Amino acid sequence: MNDDDHLVETLISSEDVFSGTLLKVKLDHVRLPDGGESVREHIVHPGAVTVIAVLDNGKLLFERQYRHPLKQVFLELPAGKIDSGEPILDTARRELREETGYKAKSWRHLGVMHPCIGYSDEHIEIFLAHGLSYVGHERDREEFIEVVELSLADALLAVRDGEISDGKTIAGLFWAEKIFSGAWDIPA
Amino acid sequence: MNDDDHLVETLISSEDVFSGTLLKVKLDHVRLPDGGESVREHIVHPGAVTVIAVLDNGKLLFERQYRHPLKQVFLELPAGKIDSGEPILDTARRELREETGYKAKSWRHLGVMHPCIGYSDEHIEIFLAHGLSYVGHERDREEFIEVVELSLADALLAVRDGEISDGKTIAGLFWAEKIFSGAWDIPA
Repeated sequence: MNDDDHLVETLISSEDVFSGTLLKVKLDHVRLPDGGESVREHIVHPGAVTVIAVLDNGKLLFERQYRHPLKQVFLELPAGKIDSGEPILDTARRELREETGYKAKSWRHLGVMHPCIGYSDEHIEIFLAHGLSYVGHERDREEFIEVVELSLADALLAVRDGEISDGKTIAGLFWAEKIFSGAWDIPA
Repeated sequence: MNDDDHLVETLISSEDVFSGTLLKVKLDHVRLPDGGESVREHIVHPGAVTVIAVLDNGKLLFERQYRHPLKQVFLELPAGKIDSGEPILDTARRELREETGYKAKSWRHLGVMHPCIGYSDEHIEIFLAHGLSYVGHERDREEFIEVVELSLADALLAVRDGEISDGKTIAGLFWAEKIFSGAWDIPA
């Protein structure tokens, strides 16, 4: 790898400045590459998964869900946070089952994306699921979700037309298109 | 549009619970679609831009930058936050100039992505820039950035291989590939 000393910051001290139910905020003092000091505020997040779930009819599972920070309904891939200590494949199986009601026979981990590198350590693990069967959802009392089936082609057009703008969903569709077209031959 | 009453939450009250230099956190009480109540913590963000900047040699401009929340150097498209009241095209011109040293003759707004819909209202406006000329960067005292040129093909492989995992960069490359291949004919 490159010698990145001209880019890397080192931690001087770290303080918890907000600790809510969902969000934990840290205020860190760092040493800059030139020896100066600065402060960095950032969210500490447990990480999440998102699932490209392919039905036997070839369509993908999406969810319509209201997202309060933006006060609008988003069309997005199934996703959810990793519980403490939970293996990521278990999170993917659990969230797909809980939110959409489907279980899958075949699972592959495709990659990871980082949604918000400027102020959060969140990583989102991208999974591909085949061999779906409906067994019934198990949503939380506070989850209101509508499950939608879309072909990959229609989902790509929805990105173009601004109907899909969620970052993890765009990343998932990017991977889906490469895998389905055979452009990327990822080991199973 | 659909009738989304079965999904939409309505605001009951809102409180500022953390206000730092970068991050503002709100704790909102909301009415759920079934009449119940819940709390939502979220970041209030001014929004940002990201730029697909195409050099005359056909390569794209990238930056290598240390991101403290994840404690690693990321390969990412040029980007930056919108100043209060600033038109988004001005932000795009300013950030490209400040961070990479390039100005561009031709600009197009391609779309918007939302990096973190679960806990931030951030929107990232995606621009395409052509006709670049180098005029010298104007980085902040605290910005340590290495500018890198990559072909679109190499950048796509970097996504496959996990060397690019930043959400806004993946979204930008998704758009770049569609536009450059002619698959998406977006009005200029």
